Amino acid sequence: MSTNASVTNSADATARMHALHAMVEDGLASLLKEHAGEPTELYGPVRYALEQRGKRLRPLLALLTCEACGGKAEDALPAALAVEVFHTFTLVHDDIMDRAETRRGRAAVHRQYDENKALLAGDYLMGLSYDLLARAERAELRPMIRSFHRMVARLCEGQALDEAFESRTEVTKPEYLDMIAGKTGALIAFAMEAGARTAAAPDAFIDSATTAGAQLGRAFQIQDDYLDLMATDPNWGKPIGGDLVQAKWAYLLLH
Amino acid sequence: MSTNASVTNSADATARMHALHAMVEDGLASLLKEHAGEPTELYGPVRYALEQRGKRLRPLLALLTCEACGGKAEDALPAALAVEVFHTFTLVHDDIMDRAETRRGRAAVHRQYDENKALLAGDYLMGLSYDLLARAERAELRPMIRSFHRMVARLCEGQALDEAFESRTEVTKPEYLDMIAGKTGALIAFAMEAGARTAAAPDAFIDSATTAGAQLGRAFQIQDDYLDLMATDPNWGKPIGGDLVQAKWAYLLLH
Repeated sequence: MSTNASVTNSADATARMHALHAMVEDGLASLLKEHAGEPTELYGPVRYALEQRGKRLRPLLALLTCEACGGKAEDALPAALAVEVFHTFTLVHDDIMDRAETRRGRAAVHRQYDENKALLAGDYLMGLSYDLLARAERAELRPMIRSFHRMVARLCEGQALDEAFESRTEVTKPEYLDMIAGKTGALIAFAMEAGARTAAAPDAFIDSATTAGAQLGRAFQIQDDYLDLMATDPNWGKPIGGDLVQAKWAYLLLH
Repeated sequence: MSTNASVTNSADATARMHALHAMVEDGLASLLKEHAGEPTELYGPVRYALEQRGKRLRPLLALLTCEACGGKAEDALPAALAVEVFHTFTLVHDDIMDRAETRRGRAAVHRQYDENKALLAGDYLMGLSYDLLARAERAELRPMIRSFHRMVARLCEGQALDEAFESRTEVTKPEYLDMIAGKTGALIAFAMEAGARTAAAPDAFIDSATTAGAQLGRAFQIQDDYLDLMATDPNWGKPIGGDLVQAKWAYLLLH
């Protein structure tokens, strides 16, 4: 009986995940339609970036956290899309900075178009993420925007440190963990925080969701750095060991 | 008697302008102090960009419009600073795109540091402008953020068109005017709209302020393109005819 219940719950959970995933994909498809217009010099690269396939980890976490806090996933969708669009923006600008040729098996935006177009498309996408936050009518906007900026600051700090570490001969483990907390942890933390805020969860819940997101982000980046070093799967999409070629200091090298 | 009154009003107006200008400079000085921290790889270029001297035309217009609509200039200060910080962000990224060496007699941010640091500092400053909007407690935030994004879209479109025009052999006058309406008009229009919104002006006032800002922005850009072509004053700060060197299509060439 308990086994059956568990199987049923697991099947329910899988179905629910599929439903939430479809909700995110539908939302992104609507954004693509919104940006079908002119000038193509701007919206061409914007659409190309938005068409990027991905696991949708961050928006799913926003929706799941909202449901876990007793809210409706639908209400958290604009904030979930804001997080995914912001993530897309960071990939576009990061690829310019890293001189990356490819992203998930396609040409990076600045290779498909040119650096100026990619830079501008990234700027546009960053702006769009704030507009999406403002479309969420259920959540109180001011604390959301102010939290979002703390995330932006931490993320920019992490990116600046990552660049700085490349020209250093020594990076300590705490320095590495602090860098990835900004570069990857901050946005995942915000995704879960936004879900909790949308559900109007008590402050203690919001804090817990934020902390859980930060920890998950850290684990995620360590795994990413590991796969970057070790991947033999051509589907992984990034050139294998690409970050190492740039002498990035990843967790594995610190041990 | 009427002459005296006029003189007094003029003196009052000048004193008020000085007071508002000082309010903007004090606000920007506070922002510099806020960003005195680490990592210097990020906040060094951010401070360097914020230290840029300027006429402060856009924030002054926000404050003046707020007062003209019966509001307190102090209440519009966060939005005024948001506009100035956003303007600073656009200069940092534009100078990367235009490969500009200097900006107002100093090295451009990407020449003083490097392109990656300037790109990241620009991203940070764009984010900061939204945080400043959210600091304005008197204005309703949601319509402000949504208007801001319409401005961002128009500005990115104008920038994309400006780039596209460089490789075209013919640009019509309406195309040129549409481009500068986005590139310069949209932000000045938002500055005045933000002032009117902060004063909780009726919708008709907000619309008038926005239209006036758009017209002023257009005039301002035409003058800028003219000065860019004709300037002999070394204090102007930009290399004389720099835009022409890049074969930009400015108003004068269209006549």
